[in-house]
Amino acid sequence: MTQEDKTRIEVEIYNQKYTIVGDEEAAHMRLVSSLVDQKMRDIKEGNKQLDINRLAVLTAVNTMNDYLKLKEAYDELKNETEKKEDLNDG
Amino acid sequence: MTQEDKTRIEVEIYNQKYTIVGDEEAAHMRLVSSLVDQKMRDIKEGNKQLDINRLAVLTAVNTMNDYLKLKEAYDELKNETEKKEDLNDG
Repeated sequence: MTQEDKTRIEVEIYNQKYTIVGDEEAAHMRLVSSLVDQKMRDIKEGNKQLDINRLAVLTAVNTMNDYLKLKEAYDELKNETEKKEDLNDG
Repeated sequence: MTQEDKTRIEVEIYNQKYTIVGDEEAAHMRLVSSLVDQKMRDIKEGNKQLDINRLAVLTAVNTMNDYLKLKEAYDELKNETEKKEDLNDG
């Protein structure tokens, strides 16, 4: 995809406007933005004293943690699937 | 896990110190923090004018996008695995 083909949308996350540029469809990018907005509000709820900068970093940490856990689950499922395929082939 | 059982570590992300509290092992939490630190530096590299607050939010957006894509791949793999199991059972 060239720069011109990319999707470019305006979103609002935690009351700030952002221009997001990506390869995905606008609907997908809006979903991603709204999930980040929601996570920031959830984390703020439990840590009222956080400033927006630390709140945003902790939101990234929280999301990265979710990503790594899902990655482990994915790799495990993939391994199991491959083992089963080897058994069925053998 | 009670509050007392939780892991509590000090990490540095983008030159700021954070106390991270979680259910995971310290090594896992350090890995998560270092991945966020690295992603912030990568995004800053391509957008030198970003302030830390917008940089952190865009890092969260980027990570959430990775999460959703992996979630789709995971769900697809799970569906395929279940279909194959049904075939083998039938």
